[in-house]
Amino acid sequence: MKINSNFNNLVPNYLFADVSRLTNEFIAANPDKNVIRLGIGDVTLPLAPVVVDAMKKACDDFLHQSTFKGYPEYEGYDFARSAVSDYYQSFGVIVQPDEVFISDGAKSDCGNIGDIFSQDNTVLIPDPVYPVYVDANIMAGRNIIYAPSGESEHFLPMPNKKIKADIIYLCSPNNPTGAAYNKEQLTEWVNYALENDAIILYDAAYEAFISEGLPRSIYAVENARYCAIELCSLSKTAGFTGVRCGYTIVPHELIREGKKLHDLWYRRQATKFNGVSWAVQCGAAAVFSPEGQRQCRSNIEYYHENAALIGSMLDELGIYYTGGKNSPYIWMKCPFSMSGWEFFDYLLKNAAVVGTPGEGFGSCGNGFFRLTSFNSHEKTAEAVERIKSLLS
Amino acid sequence: MKINSNFNNLVPNYLFADVSRLTNEFIAANPDKNVIRLGIGDVTLPLAPVVVDAMKKACDDFLHQSTFKGYPEYEGYDFARSAVSDYYQSFGVIVQPDEVFISDGAKSDCGNIGDIFSQDNTVLIPDPVYPVYVDANIMAGRNIIYAPSGESEHFLPMPNKKIKADIIYLCSPNNPTGAAYNKEQLTEWVNYALENDAIILYDAAYEAFISEGLPRSIYAVENARYCAIELCSLSKTAGFTGVRCGYTIVPHELIREGKKLHDLWYRRQATKFNGVSWAVQCGAAAVFSPEGQRQCRSNIEYYHENAALIGSMLDELGIYYTGGKNSPYIWMKCPFSMSGWEFFDYLLKNAAVVGTPGEGFGSCGNGFFRLTSFNSHEKTAEAVERIKSLLS
Repeated sequence: MKINSNFNNLVPNYLFADVSRLTNEFIAANPDKNVIRLGIGDVTLPLAPVVVDAMKKACDDFLHQSTFKGYPEYEGYDFARSAVSDYYQSFGVIVQPDEVFISDGAKSDCGNIGDIFSQDNTVLIPDPVYPVYVDANIMAGRNIIYAPSGESEHFLPMPNKKIKADIIYLCSPNNPTGAAYNKEQLTEWVNYALENDAIILYDAAYEAFISEGLPRSIYAVENARYCAIELCSLSKTAGFTGVRCGYTIVPHELIREGKKLHDLWYRRQATKFNGVSWAVQCGAAAVFSPEGQRQCRSNIEYYHENAALIGSMLDELGIYYTGGKNSPYIWMKCPFSMSGWEFFDYLLKNAAVVGTPGEGFGSCGNGFFRLTSFNSHEKTAEAVERIKSLLS
Repeated sequence: MKINSNFNNLVPNYLFADVSRLTNEFIAANPDKNVIRLGIGDVTLPLAPVVVDAMKKACDDFLHQSTFKGYPEYEGYDFARSAVSDYYQSFGVIVQPDEVFISDGAKSDCGNIGDIFSQDNTVLIPDPVYPVYVDANIMAGRNIIYAPSGESEHFLPMPNKKIKADIIYLCSPNNPTGAAYNKEQLTEWVNYALENDAIILYDAAYEAFISEGLPRSIYAVENARYCAIELCSLSKTAGFTGVRCGYTIVPHELIREGKKLHDLWYRRQATKFNGVSWAVQCGAAAVFSPEGQRQCRSNIEYYHENAALIGSMLDELGIYYTGGKNSPYIWMKCPFSMSGWEFFDYLLKNAAVVGTPGEGFGSCGNGFFRLTSFNSHEKTAEAVERIKSLLS
């Protein structure tokens, strides 16, 4: 038996493990310091009560033969798919319910979607970005090229017409930079994809944080339905990181080599997936109800306020950053020309504040640092004061 | 962009769609006939109340910041992994908690486990069997060979030493035949795998139905930890088809080319999966509590009684069959030398009973027919009477 030798090409990523270890060592050595974590990449506010109610009601359905639910549809229940379609319509984007595939999370889909593509494709991945795109494609043995970005592009890489890519990952608003494309920029990407017969895998996981009228879906761009698959999640939209639900949209117009990608993805999911829990799908549908939206938006507002606090502090200090406005993430330039890890140490030792070094998200992340808005108002405000005193 | 051309080699499987269509056409044409479905492959009894209680309690945890749960561990919570380990210990098999990976179902794992193996492996698959093994490996472009079985092997194919396989799927008790290997037979498979440096992917999804002292895990066999991965599910053990939870066991001893398969699977799951819902894992742990086991066993007993009714009827008629004793499935030889589809029509038209033609599970299934024990006692008894009258 031969193992998949592509695994030998994976580079271990100890970013979060190292952050956690160094933080714990610091706390052990300095028990009096009140360490504040602005490295958190996970939501912290409770679920919307209307969502929990729906899930508990769904659990009760399992108790009685007349309401018991067995195998779900591979692609999701119609009511859940329709709820997503209606949600898109609420911001002016038309997606048919039967183009929506409900899944256990965007991370699964980000990786598994590769099953429908040949190994023999060149994959273009922004740098810096969520490391999962890279690792999933290394495992599959695909050629990977990067779209580097930095301060001059405001961390929004644009297509390079000299480069030919077949599969393009875009994440907007981006993790870790919080930078979000406008419609003109996304149109350039769609046109590039169409010219190159490429497919865009558009990760919209942070769309609910968009507050400045930017596109919340790639399908806000004309002709994107001919070249883009959109992946999204309720993790950040509705705090579903521990509930596990996402969705992937494959438009009917998406055809390559005479095959509808919609049919290929359906076949993939029908073969290697068995659908999402009835209780979870009921909770997901509740997210998109009017009351669910009201309750979920209020959580997002809370995180926005934290991000605004951090952004104002950086404005005041004159430190360059992206994100914060359309994202729970603030991506700041490290002061004193420090590397991300140097600033990590400096901030931990001198302000007892934890963030995430940019190097962990790609080589273009060096010299940058990610702060997040997922802590409480009180702790975020306290951290902001400490950073301000340290860097003023 | 090139699609995965292996998808062109998939043969559409319309088995259950065709069964459903033909059944509905018959009902429309014969509204007076009380059609009884013994083709059901899904559980029908409600969940154990102790499981629903645990899930609802877990949903409440999402309501409060102090008990809120975010991203789960990729490999499952320790308490869920320990619950599986303790369950194995209850029937005398030692599996360490950290060898257990909790997932959203055995079907996902059956397909996804292929990610850790090279495309360049020969896969040996029993015939007849659950079609997912074949399709997942066609998608991956692997060479597939079959282990044919029939009446002479009691549908329990044994290794052919002239054939060299790298990856071997075994399903015991088998879907669709209900046949289950004894320890001597499994030992032969383990020895064959060790001699060929092969890996057994052992699907134990129906282990909870074993009632005749047969092994409930491949690890009941000496040295299996050096050559086998076990996949299992709570779908049939605890009626979790609509809840979605399974697990995969990768022993620490499983090393190939100097790599621990445990580490490869962890890396695969960490990259392309984000864990199972807190609420679902709490429900899963409740399955393995003493009260959970009592309630779940009572459902399995109910199905066993149905299977016994069907088995007695076939014994009385002198019709050859496998399964029923260690499985919810009864795999009967079609009378009058009919094909599976011919018998499907005959039974539907003359007894208004629905089953599943064996052809849908592989070419060796031709001439056989699957009945299941998932209907009610009353309907199963009525169907048994009708079949008896028809075939006596």
